[in-house]
Amino acid sequence: MAEPVVSRLAIVGAGLIGSSIARAARDYGAAGEIAILDASTQVMARVRELGIANEASGDAASALKGADLAVICTPVGVCGAVAESLAPHLEAGAILSDVGSVKGAVVAQVDPYVPQGVHFIPAHPIAGTEFSGPDAGFATLFQNRWCILTPPEGADEKAVKTLSDFWTRIGAKVETMTAEHHDKVLALTSHLPHLIAYNIVGTADDFGEQTRSEVIKFSASGFRDFTRIAASDPTMWRDVFLNNKEAVLEMLGRFNEDLSALQRMIRRDDGQGLYDFFSRTRAIRRSIIEQGQDTAAPDFGRQKLN
Amino acid sequence: MAEPVVSRLAIVGAGLIGSSIARAARDYGAAGEIAILDASTQVMARVRELGIANEASGDAASALKGADLAVICTPVGVCGAVAESLAPHLEAGAILSDVGSVKGAVVAQVDPYVPQGVHFIPAHPIAGTEFSGPDAGFATLFQNRWCILTPPEGADEKAVKTLSDFWTRIGAKVETMTAEHHDKVLALTSHLPHLIAYNIVGTADDFGEQTRSEVIKFSASGFRDFTRIAASDPTMWRDVFLNNKEAVLEMLGRFNEDLSALQRMIRRDDGQGLYDFFSRTRAIRRSIIEQGQDTAAPDFGRQKLN
Repeated sequence: MAEPVVSRLAIVGAGLIGSSIARAARDYGAAGEIAILDASTQVMARVRELGIANEASGDAASALKGADLAVICTPVGVCGAVAESLAPHLEAGAILSDVGSVKGAVVAQVDPYVPQGVHFIPAHPIAGTEFSGPDAGFATLFQNRWCILTPPEGADEKAVKTLSDFWTRIGAKVETMTAEHHDKVLALTSHLPHLIAYNIVGTADDFGEQTRSEVIKFSASGFRDFTRIAASDPTMWRDVFLNNKEAVLEMLGRFNEDLSALQRMIRRDDGQGLYDFFSRTRAIRRSIIEQGQDTAAPDFGRQKLN
Repeated sequence: MAEPVVSRLAIVGAGLIGSSIARAARDYGAAGEIAILDASTQVMARVRELGIANEASGDAASALKGADLAVICTPVGVCGAVAESLAPHLEAGAILSDVGSVKGAVVAQVDPYVPQGVHFIPAHPIAGTEFSGPDAGFATLFQNRWCILTPPEGADEKAVKTLSDFWTRIGAKVETMTAEHHDKVLALTSHLPHLIAYNIVGTADDFGEQTRSEVIKFSASGFRDFTRIAASDPTMWRDVFLNNKEAVLEMLGRFNEDLSALQRMIRRDDGQGLYDFFSRTRAIRRSIIEQGQDTAAPDFGRQKLN
């Protein structure tokens, strides 16, 4: 196996993403040693049972000792507080990174606590499932997924390269952009779809018991795919919406305008308008298949599971 | 193999659903003979090449001769015209059915043309993919999927039982309800999710080229699942919305009210409100997994495909 990219990796927050990074770093030899820190003693106990870290004492000073890469994998809302608690223990020359789904707010929260000589390079691996916690992680989660780095202006080039190499080693494809641009693109591709999915599942939940049970029974007709998205971690998503408020509200405004137009077409029996709209969206799906971001197998190949 | 449920099956419209019924009826021995009719000579030629019918002459009189079950598998918007063209050739005692995603409007369109002595029993198999045409069909499409029958009051019990047996034989689970109730439940579980998915993909498409290509690139973050739904057949869905207008507009009204509430929570930094909302929707997902309507495998097991 190739040399490890970093000699000691410290992961702070052992949820789906943190525990997947630990497993992937081990399986792909991306780190010489792996330390895991989590604020919950229950999670720390489970991390020790799972055996996914070389060090899981729960002590920050001990976890960060000798770590050349520390990755904050907590919900976005507590990134600042976590950075503050880590700061005194970070090694000079170490890279500090994160995995948050918003970047501007993370930078604003974390930046004030980054010690002189530590390189803060924010990152966002676009990967996940609707499950949470240390048991939910798996080593192949990042395979062929994008990881977006948002290095600040004037960032240390060597640090950016090391972080990029780390993500590449555990299977991701790396792209860099500004934090602002990231937050705009993700508002559209991720935050708005999650909000919509949460909303439609909530609408169904407002019905009486009988309708609700029929909704569940007949969910394969389209609703089901939304429920998977709407089962994602509530804390994580609360923090995403609170921390990418402007971009999400802007995208939501556009979405609402478009939906009003579709609503008017239905009310006015504008069959041609509906047909044209529905034909246009098919082309986007084709591009996604062509670019290898999904499989063209009918039903995601789920029929094989029945 | 058990006795065929019907001696001769006539399928009218050889798209995804029609061609899947033909393949399934053959593979599971549900029909002694299978005739396929389609208004397109190109589709008829392809049906002959695929060899999925015993008779594919393209002549209605010949296709329906001796057929004890005829299933209209065209878009909902042309059901009435199709029923009118079939009427003179339907055998006395035959069952006429359909597969439309709306039922009230289909009944209103088809009923006037149903000859005395023919049993019209509407049906809706809740199954499909985003692909269209005779090549898209496959025999296992209906396995473990619901098929809803909406027999009119006073419907012939024997005819209902035969149709139910037919769908059961090709793998479906059968449920009966009124056409009105069907249209309300499906507006929520299927029609509204499709409208929303079309809409969000349309919103993305309105952006400039650069953003659009980034949306495609980073689609795995949530957007991708919407594009699959929004790639469904435009003609079929135009007809669904035009023909289940009242129920869809009612559900859309509720959806919009709920979305306004979420929007207000984001704008006002109501973290507790968002958290509570997102926690509630998780429970619905759990019910769907428990009832076997989906797999709990992370990412639908799609990682195996990478």
